[in-house]
Amino acid sequence: MTRRTPKDREGIPLAVIKRLPIYYRHLTELSDKEVERISSRELAEKIGVTQSQIRQDLSLFGSFGQQGYGYRVDELRIEIERILGLDRRADMVLVGAGHLGRALANYPNFKKRGFNIIAIFDCSPEVIGQIIGGVRVQDVQELEDSLLRRPVKIGIITTPEDVAQGIADVLAKGGVEGIWNFAPATLRVPDDVVLENVHVGESLMALSFKIEHKGELYK
Amino acid sequence: MTRRTPKDREGIPLAVIKRLPIYYRHLTELSDKEVERISSRELAEKIGVTQSQIRQDLSLFGSFGQQGYGYRVDELRIEIERILGLDRRADMVLVGAGHLGRALANYPNFKKRGFNIIAIFDCSPEVIGQIIGGVRVQDVQELEDSLLRRPVKIGIITTPEDVAQGIADVLAKGGVEGIWNFAPATLRVPDDVVLENVHVGESLMALSFKIEHKGELYK
Repeated sequence: MTRRTPKDREGIPLAVIKRLPIYYRHLTELSDKEVERISSRELAEKIGVTQSQIRQDLSLFGSFGQQGYGYRVDELRIEIERILGLDRRADMVLVGAGHLGRALANYPNFKKRGFNIIAIFDCSPEVIGQIIGGVRVQDVQELEDSLLRRPVKIGIITTPEDVAQGIADVLAKGGVEGIWNFAPATLRVPDDVVLENVHVGESLMALSFKIEHKGELYK
Repeated sequence: MTRRTPKDREGIPLAVIKRLPIYYRHLTELSDKEVERISSRELAEKIGVTQSQIRQDLSLFGSFGQQGYGYRVDELRIEIERILGLDRRADMVLVGAGHLGRALANYPNFKKRGFNIIAIFDCSPEVIGQIIGGVRVQDVQELEDSLLRRPVKIGIITTPEDVAQGIADVLAKGGVEGIWNFAPATLRVPDDVVLENVHVGESLMALSFKIEHKGELYK
């Protein structure tokens, strides 16, 4: 296995960034089932892409797999883990302790993968002081100070739409490297802050579209 | 404005299906602000795509906008609403009344757009009988009968990973046209059932990747 350094690359297509976590999920499933090795054909079928797609995607990061042997599941899983940055610990703060915030704060897989919610903030007096996923909810007024005292890598926004931009501004000023936004808002963030949106409503609309246009071809 | 029929089309790229809901969200924002008309340049900037991208995407469905005039916001919004199937009512059932299920059941925008959760199911005796978003939670054992009595268009899965496939099977057998899956599982569904996944964990991994590879180029 040969690794490539970033300098070898001309750029990583966004589609690859979307596929790598899918590869990782399937490889983790295989690894949990103690599968040691898989042919590139089987892996491609399981994931639902072509063999050449996998080969091409992975070739951006090095050379994996062997002709006629396939892939060593655990080796590839660990390598993708490294590429995705899952081998490093990422502290996170969560702002907005509604149902969605609670769901995320209680999600067991995050901690397992090194993503650790160290603080939770809300504006509701009824919610402040509650313990969610082992963390006490603080007043959102304390967010700025908290980030000064203890910087985090990622800020999660699960607030209503109308306050999301204000929270994003505080998070960016507080030095987060990435914002994971669940509010149905179009946020503006500085160039050095990575923004990843989960727009649940858009996913439902896409489902609706696919149902209405079932039977038509997709490219 | 000329509409195209599906027969004119060779196929709708999946990327377009992802962009249409984004266009719709921005047009709704503009419409709420009572903006009547927008130039194609302004619309493109707001959305963050090129003018020709918007033109090309919309051309799959008809001819919209006028040279030198731009788009009539409400006309385009209503047209995209129709393309997305949001002008038709879609009844849904939700299976899994944990935090995430509760968040979705309480999401006000769904009902506004014609998506209506008519029944909620769970397996926990403590949760069965509770009222969530105005709907009483039923025993998941009743799901099959419920779908027979009152068919729905969409089934939402917010269960743990290990039971998600079993629920998908019951939903498919019960005649749903689409499954909106939030469980971190790879579901198998019949060809005539549309599957849309929201894999929250994969989105977090993508964010992690983008943070780790910040400064490298993206295509």
